[in-house]
Amino acid sequence: VIRQLTIIGLGLIGGSLALALKRAGAVERVTACARRQETLDEALKLGVIDAGSTDLAEAVSGAEVVVVATPVGAMESIFRQLAPHLTADMLLTDVGSTKGSVVAAARQAFGELPTGFVPGHPIAGTEDSGVAAAVADLYQHRRIILTPLETSSHEAVARVRAMWEACGAEVIEMGVAHHDEVLAATSHLPHMLAYALVDTLARMGESEEIFEFAAGGFRDFTRIASSSPAMWHDICLANRGALLAVLRRFADDLAQLTQAIEQGDSDYLLQTFTRAKGARDRFAEKFED
Amino acid sequence: VIRQLTIIGLGLIGGSLALALKRAGAVERVTACARRQETLDEALKLGVIDAGSTDLAEAVSGAEVVVVATPVGAMESIFRQLAPHLTADMLLTDVGSTKGSVVAAARQAFGELPTGFVPGHPIAGTEDSGVAAAVADLYQHRRIILTPLETSSHEAVARVRAMWEACGAEVIEMGVAHHDEVLAATSHLPHMLAYALVDTLARMGESEEIFEFAAGGFRDFTRIASSSPAMWHDICLANRGALLAVLRRFADDLAQLTQAIEQGDSDYLLQTFTRAKGARDRFAEKFED
Repeated sequence: VIRQLTIIGLGLIGGSLALALKRAGAVERVTACARRQETLDEALKLGVIDAGSTDLAEAVSGAEVVVVATPVGAMESIFRQLAPHLTADMLLTDVGSTKGSVVAAARQAFGELPTGFVPGHPIAGTEDSGVAAAVADLYQHRRIILTPLETSSHEAVARVRAMWEACGAEVIEMGVAHHDEVLAATSHLPHMLAYALVDTLARMGESEEIFEFAAGGFRDFTRIASSSPAMWHDICLANRGALLAVLRRFADDLAQLTQAIEQGDSDYLLQTFTRAKGARDRFAEKFED
Repeated sequence: VIRQLTIIGLGLIGGSLALALKRAGAVERVTACARRQETLDEALKLGVIDAGSTDLAEAVSGAEVVVVATPVGAMESIFRQLAPHLTADMLLTDVGSTKGSVVAAARQAFGELPTGFVPGHPIAGTEDSGVAAAVADLYQHRRIILTPLETSSHEAVARVRAMWEACGAEVIEMGVAHHDEVLAATSHLPHMLAYALVDTLARMGESEEIFEFAAGGFRDFTRIASSSPAMWHDICLANRGALLAVLRRFADDLAQLTQAIEQGDSDYLLQTFTRAKGARDRFAEKFED
């Protein structure tokens, strides 16, 4: 049981972690730091946290586990504020969607990386955000990627793993660079495409009318374009290298598809669509979609 | 009440139309033509149709309304087979996702366009296909676009409209070219992006592993990549002009976004994501998504 969990940057992800651990009886006390007092008031009212402060030092005092759940662009600044308050036995993890940038930020802020620091990334969430959207079962049967560092102690890794497993999640370990490549492909690229598509349409003439005739496929396809612009701004820049690589690969593939349509290349079109459908159907079977 | 409705090319769309009209008491008898006898047997067993034949002439005999629901690439051939059996008071419509190509096919097959011919396109459907997936409420509160031609009689337009309204749908009329531009943007382009994305990922190394870490956003985003490759092959080529125009526009926008990421252009990223989120949120409000 964690005596005190402190969440820095309280929103959907951190709030859901608090609720899940409370439900599992895996935490005694939850504190949080947020920029706005209203967020803390709301979280207190909802029973997500037991105490909160807009002052990081106050929130983190007495923490056994500190979870940084701010947008990734803010992490270096948070780590710097955190540095003087970090004790040797404090566990530190984060929930950032990119890992290379978070590790770099930690290196900048801490100099030597703390042995209690284990970067993490829950593959969960919705296009909603904010602590009011937090739910105790957000991590149930979801995957959590941990990217332990050479500096991370075995004990720290085991304790962060146990925390997420208490939420009903499946914990997987992988390297930092590999995480960033995989996520660039499966999450960051699709978000860029959804944003770009909606924006392309919104800027076309008669865009209001255009959206009128969008059907279910469009709704599903563009749902992620309702995600937080500030968060995705940060992710784009934080995972720039891996994202640019898949963006270029995708642009090349799309250019080839465009050429095939132009040339009426039936074989290319049928092969591409069939291969994609096969991969999507196998994926759907696995995840019961 | 329609005395006899004949569906040529029995699948999800035609089957659901039959079920909806039957439930509304708006049709007395439904016949169908399909390529495979098994499809007709299944539809008979499911109560979707009252009689079926793999012979088009036999299926269409006695029809008051003929609905062509084959992939758009097959329509010219179907219209040619239909031509000798079309009577002056027979109503003819289709459910093709592209309208310019269907009108061109009709012109090729019939020479002079029949006054009873009113092209149509229901904005409904799922990534499932086949008559077994047919449901009576598929068109409830969905939009049906009709693109009446100069040759279409007012009576024919009114009757096709009434047929769809009996299924609970909202009928909208627009020009053929406008339909094709709107659908290229809201339906055909997203399908190309979903197919291209899944294919890009499937062709990356360790693609099986990549899909393991895909979350809900990816599931939603790529669901339409499970659609029928043959159908989408036809749509691509049938609406080639309008689709190429939006594909190029999108590719340009994506190249600009890519450049902004490369250059760390925060303003561009935030503005683009915010504008897209705004458009998507307005769309979601309207459609209660």
